[in-house]
Amino acid sequence: MRVLGIDPGSSITGYGIVDEADNKLLLYECGVIRMQAAKPFPDKLKRIYDGLTEVILKCRPDIAVVENIFLSKNVKSAIKMGHARGVAILSCVNAGLPVYEYTPLEIKMAVVGYGAAEKAQVQEMVRRILNLDNIIESEDASDAIAASVCHIHSAKVRGIIEKAGRL
Amino acid sequence: MRVLGIDPGSSITGYGIVDEADNKLLLYECGVIRMQAAKPFPDKLKRIYDGLTEVILKCRPDIAVVENIFLSKNVKSAIKMGHARGVAILSCVNAGLPVYEYTPLEIKMAVVGYGAAEKAQVQEMVRRILNLDNIIESEDASDAIAASVCHIHSAKVRGIIEKAGRL
Repeated sequence: MRVLGIDPGSSITGYGIVDEADNKLLLYECGVIRMQAAKPFPDKLKRIYDGLTEVILKCRPDIAVVENIFLSKNVKSAIKMGHARGVAILSCVNAGLPVYEYTPLEIKMAVVGYGAAEKAQVQEMVRRILNLDNIIESEDASDAIAASVCHIHSAKVRGIIEKAGRL
Repeated sequence: MRVLGIDPGSSITGYGIVDEADNKLLLYECGVIRMQAAKPFPDKLKRIYDGLTEVILKCRPDIAVVENIFLSKNVKSAIKMGHARGVAILSCVNAGLPVYEYTPLEIKMAVVGYGAAEKAQVQEMVRRILNLDNIIESEDASDAIAASVCHIHSAKVRGIIEKAGRL
């Protein structure tokens, strides 16, 4: 299973692709799509959509996982992020990928085991889980990888529960 | 000038196309894109994008006007609307249309002359401005038309100011 994780944002959108086979996780690719601050907002949305579409065409993931929006107190920036997340989801659906969604809390719980984990803790756990020499410098890419890992763990847990139900 | 107005929403997205020539406004077409409540959210986003893309291909507007989100107290629904608005804007940009944005307040001021106008007042003024026999039943379509009218009025005012500046 190849999972594309996305951490959408209207300034930087992170992505991270993780392969899972024989109970092993392997980082396939990760990166960020950067929007030029001076560009009009509609152009930024197009950049996210085109950038993710390109990643999907190149890396051919089986499914996509998009991090949900944290209901912060800044409503304006949450709405802006909603736009970015909308086009990110659309790029996956238009490429025929099933889309799964997890909250930041669920992702942190799955990766660090602690819902209030700091970004640096997520980076360190991502490094360990994927057996990397160094942390992924970009927090956005690291968060996107964490979303992929969260889904793979959740899918495994669901599998175990279903199996137990059939016994 | 043919203007496509859009009132984006994740349940219903309204659109209204208005032609402006020789200082006259003419309703070219309007309608709504309805999302099935039971469908997954990503499918609804795709429906908005595909529906608007179809309208643009059929009606060939010159520009698009997308109503901005009213910062209501319900943050969750505002974020959801942000997703819908994001893909609505993307459908316009991907079709090569310049996108203009106005707040609900600006639209009501332009059409009714009163920022706190009720939906019914907007419907009635849209009917009068476009010289229609009856009001547009759908509030979403009527609001979308109002967005088009708002832009045409604003563009005219800008033109008058620019002309005055050159005297």
